[in-house]
Amino acid sequence: LEAPVPWSDLQQIRAQNPLVHNITNYVVMNSTANALLAVGASPVMAHALEEVEEMVGFASALVLNIGTLSPPWVESMVRAAKAARRRQIPIVLDPVGSGATALRTSTVRRLLEEAPPTILRGNASEIRSLVVNEHSTKGVDSAHGVDAALDAAQTLSRRHGCVVTVSGATDLIVGEGRVVKIHNGHPMMTKVTGLGCTASALTGAFAAVNPSPLLAAANAMAVLGIAGELAAERSRGPGTLQLHIIDELYCLREEDVLARLRREQ
Amino acid sequence: LEAPVPWSDLQQIRAQNPLVHNITNYVVMNSTANALLAVGASPVMAHALEEVEEMVGFASALVLNIGTLSPPWVESMVRAAKAARRRQIPIVLDPVGSGATALRTSTVRRLLEEAPPTILRGNASEIRSLVVNEHSTKGVDSAHGVDAALDAAQTLSRRHGCVVTVSGATDLIVGEGRVVKIHNGHPMMTKVTGLGCTASALTGAFAAVNPSPLLAAANAMAVLGIAGELAAERSRGPGTLQLHIIDELYCLREEDVLARLRREQ
Amino acid sequence: LEAPVPWSDLQQIRAQNPLVHNITNYVVMNSTANALLAVGASPVMAHALEEVEEMVGFASALVLNIGTLSPPWVESMVRAAKAARRRQIPIVLDPVGSGATALRTSTVRRLLEEAPPTILRGNASEIRSLVVNEHSTKGVDSAHGVDAALDAAQTLSRRHGCVVTVSGATDLIVGEGRVVKIHNGHPMMTKVTGLGCTASALTGAFAAVNPSPLLAAANAMAVLGIAGELAAERSRGPGTLQLHIIDELYCLREEDVLARLRREQ
Repeated sequence: LEAPVPWSDLQQIRAQNPLVHNITNYVVMNSTANALLAVGASPVMAHALEEVEEMVGFASALVLNIGTLSPPWVESMVRAAKAARRRQIPIVLDPVGSGATALRTSTVRRLLEEAPPTILRGNASEIRSLVVNEHSTKGVDSAHGVDAALDAAQTLSRRHGCVVTVSGATDLIVGEGRVVKIHNGHPMMTKVTGLGCTASALTGAFAAVNPSPLLAAANAMAVLGIAGELAAERSRGPGTLQLHIIDELYCLREEDVLARLRREQ
Repeated sequence: LEAPVPWSDLQQIRAQNPLVHNITNYVVMNSTANALLAVGASPVMAHALEEVEEMVGFASALVLNIGTLSPPWVESMVRAAKAARRRQIPIVLDPVGSGATALRTSTVRRLLEEAPPTILRGNASEIRSLVVNEHSTKGVDSAHGVDAALDAAQTLSRRHGCVVTVSGATDLIVGEGRVVKIHNGHPMMTKVTGLGCTASALTGAFAAVNPSPLLAAANAMAVLGIAGELAAERSRGPGTLQLHIIDELYCLREEDVLARLRREQ
Repeated sequence: LEAPVPWSDLQQIRAQNPLVHNITNYVVMNSTANALLAVGASPVMAHALEEVEEMVGFASALVLNIGTLSPPWVESMVRAAKAARRRQIPIVLDPVGSGATALRTSTVRRLLEEAPPTILRGNASEIRSLVVNEHSTKGVDSAHGVDAALDAAQTLSRRHGCVVTVSGATDLIVGEGRVVKIHNGHPMMTKVTGLGCTASALTGAFAAVNPSPLLAAANAMAVLGIAGELAAERSRGPGTLQLHIIDELYCLREEDVLARLRREQ
């Protein structure tokens, strides 16, 4: 019997401790660093234009997240992404709030053109905003069903040669000519800030050890979803849920992954 | 029997999910986003001059907090506040550390002049610093009794046409010709960083659904205080208290609010 | 029988509530503020060039941490450190990621030259990077054994007249012609982001009340290590550990410190 792929990736991350370089938003820096540590990766946060290229030089993956964007950070993201492409390490791009403001949408479009990511991960409205000319994101939450974003994801995947993860109650992972669906997770996770950003950060760690961006992206979503399910059983509300997810990522065992994985492909 | 107003506001927030736009300090971005999610609001953090006006365009309330200020953020706050006034959505201003440095005091005074908030919420020394010519704030903690700040609050309320909340062991909410006192809360809350900032963020959510800024401000303080009391019963220290408050905000029931509300007006 | 020095420092911090001014990284602002509050200190975070001198004027200690550095913050750190030296309050410098990028290494070297700290606290690879011409830091984690850094620490201590703490499974505190070793702590602490930064922040609080920088630095490491040991007994994983450490810092009793202190000098 073959071990499920999420488990084998987790073992690789724990064994290799890949360095994941994050240029991410202020809200989630602490929580995504802790999630990366919990799965066995080594997080580093560095955003200065003066040092991002050097830091990418040590990294096994680069995670870009535009959640609290300003123009100097855009330049750093572009420079870091170009350096990551030269080194052929995976890039994960999280277009937080794309569609809400011109700064965000244009930044994501610029990154997609100038230094396309290996994996683009957003919610349905963020992914749609990159295809449709719409300005209707309600903050950083999903305004559309996940299925409605499938077309947009396929368009973006073809156009930019990247895997696209549309996260939601069901996560869609699109690319390499396939669509994988992950049905794991718990509704209370939507009440914890930045778990989408955590999904992107973990996707970076998985992409550092799994040569298939499609499988890395799907496995990251599955592992976070399973950790969320286990954590929700111990949590009265979203405050403790945030911490218990970190604990579960750290404690996750093969039998939990085997028993709970709900993947469709 | 009429339901107490804090409960009715909470129900409205849960039903309407108002988008609360925060330009706030780095220390509390995660914790205030989680508090807003826990009561049912949708938080967004955005500070770039290039996007704050657009983001205000989607928001139901704007929360400004000067806790880790720098000049570019001042310009963004002024621009956002002016946009919020044009849209007639409520503005909450938290003058963290006002009185400690000229940058902070002058920024708050500029905001009060150029784009006065709907509600100003600070501790006693911060509120006093905006009236008296004093430079004696000890960091961001209250250096004076709450009662001593009542005069300052009334002066500021008249001068700028805003409600003023002075938080402390007893919260004073001043405006609309009245003073409301809230006696809820727990002493251990002073050992958790940024619960004052959380009070301001929640005030934004309550002001988004309650047309009376005075009642919105009082209800927000009552709900946070009650959640703090309930959370303190489950917490060994301030570390777990921080998370349990989020849980309690999420789980809060009408009977808890009814049984615990200690309001004087 | 004499009370152990860490306990007497803790009592002083709880009695005096020293204001600790932090110019630190985005990742740990919340967690280090909470750690400082838990031991009884008053944290303030302020980084704008326009206000750091004024804020230092109120402070009993200054903590500089380069974890998410950019050039404007470097200027603020230099200005704040010079003001702290003029006021003769202790300065703690945390060279996060020194050795990884030229920006970080050169910033630490500049601070060591222009406004040397009272206490320098880093992991073995960070401390070594300031002596050896090496560029091999793996992110912000320690890449070398602690003992291997003893030489570097002694060189830096002599050259800059400061105490040097090299943290790791065993913490080395070097200065005043002595070496103190602290054997407290728990392995799971390496899975919580920013506990090194917390060690630096607490070192600031201890240095504010203890006239010996060597003893202040050693006592801070001992207290954090003991809190970590106690917290680990209550924690399933690093998520809850992060919060329980705050609880333990708040609840710490003399008998815990007496029973658990493992100091060698």
